Amino acid sequence: MANRLLTLGRNLQRRKAREKEGLFVAEGIRTVEELLSSQVRAKGALVTSRLSETPRGKALREQLEAAGVPVEDVSEQEFESAAQTETPQGVLAIASVPEQRLADLNLGDVARILVLDAVQDPGNVGTMLRTALAFGVTATFSLPGTVDLWNAKVVRSGMGAHFRHPCLAGTWDDLDAFRREHAITMWAADVGGTPVEKLTPPSRLAVVVGNEGGGLSPRTREQVDRLVALSIEGVESLNVAVAAGILLYELRQ
Amino acid sequence: MANRLLTLGRNLQRRKAREKEGLFVAEGIRTVEELLSSQVRAKGALVTSRLSETPRGKALREQLEAAGVPVEDVSEQEFESAAQTETPQGVLAIASVPEQRLADLNLGDVARILVLDAVQDPGNVGTMLRTALAFGVTATFSLPGTVDLWNAKVVRSGMGAHFRHPCLAGTWDDLDAFRREHAITMWAADVGGTPVEKLTPPSRLAVVVGNEGGGLSPRTREQVDRLVALSIEGVESLNVAVAAGILLYELRQ
Repeated sequence: MANRLLTLGRNLQRRKAREKEGLFVAEGIRTVEELLSSQVRAKGALVTSRLSETPRGKALREQLEAAGVPVEDVSEQEFESAAQTETPQGVLAIASVPEQRLADLNLGDVARILVLDAVQDPGNVGTMLRTALAFGVTATFSLPGTVDLWNAKVVRSGMGAHFRHPCLAGTWDDLDAFRREHAITMWAADVGGTPVEKLTPPSRLAVVVGNEGGGLSPRTREQVDRLVALSIEGVESLNVAVAAGILLYELRQ
Repeated sequence: MANRLLTLGRNLQRRKAREKEGLFVAEGIRTVEELLSSQVRAKGALVTSRLSETPRGKALREQLEAAGVPVEDVSEQEFESAAQTETPQGVLAIASVPEQRLADLNLGDVARILVLDAVQDPGNVGTMLRTALAFGVTATFSLPGTVDLWNAKVVRSGMGAHFRHPCLAGTWDDLDAFRREHAITMWAADVGGTPVEKLTPPSRLAVVVGNEGGGLSPRTREQVDRLVALSIEGVESLNVAVAAGILLYELRQ
């Protein structure tokens, strides 16, 4: 039983292990605080002595214990072997990936879905989840080729969004079936598209953003109802998280 | 004379050296390509044998030589000792920081200035410069406490924006004098501000964004004409580069 959580934490660095176990890792004080204040259930936490050096860290440890979360004390070196983000601040929690499926989404007359089409930078993806929550987006759906939404770096960048915003992954076929069933129009961001400020958004809309370097995948180009753009000058493109932020703001419900 | 550029590149990792020499470092194929296609003058480049392994890298080396830029071949290890970004792709160029001052800015009847108030993440700052260029912002001005705009990581994230968009730094007094002289209104982003979509922007406007964790500095709060916000829910704040992107889009000229 010794170091059971440490072994688990190390395993969860691999996407396959996260998917098999249905677990993910939340690193850093802020992320673990957000986790504890959400409905997502923490299974355990790894801490080093460093955590108790600040009042905020000390309080977090007490909160973990008060919530009945098993806490395992490990050395700095052991901790580093399980952590994936920079400056993880001597605390990480292991928690269950919320069970969410497209079929469970509660779509109103008006709905917005953010679709990630092979977006690869964990910081960009976490930032987009945070933005999606902030603008009341119904859910984010990641297509194959996108970084795992439950990667520790994505969770860290999401700053708690993962615990309050439906974060889903699936295939193109899953998304197609869902769109057909719920009459969801699909727009995708592309530099050659129609300026978005000239358009009136449909009531149910999925907004697709593509890969940082390569843009939209062939299948998105084939299936999308409309390509939309932001009017820019002097640069080839905006950062994908900035572009998604402006589109979700402009197209908010 | 041997390895003169290597020694210089290593020195330029320090902000003080960059300021003293008036030089900066551009790392990676894309950034160096953008540099060469701009008006900014490259003083020299360090390359490793890895650069010539791809057609694009090989073409870049030829372009550097055709442009009369001194190219110094170094080992991978030497190169790493001068590079500051991840995966610098075997090429970095040393170039002159463009001589730009507030007094030289060409302000039209309508102007937008982005002001960075102790923003610290290089990726966020580079992304904001890219956005500022894309939306036709007149200049970006960084206040004390902000990461050096000519830091190699900021330059890399800017994806060429540094070479086409005035990137300035100075004191609060510099900014005050400039604002008084040119009748520039100042708005700052703050969660407690007026929703920006309810406002009509003045013709000459400076938009201030604050530190990632701490927000606006006391001096900004004191001097700003108005605090403005984006209407968000469920999160404390947006990522600063996303917030700046939406504000610059919403308030574009």
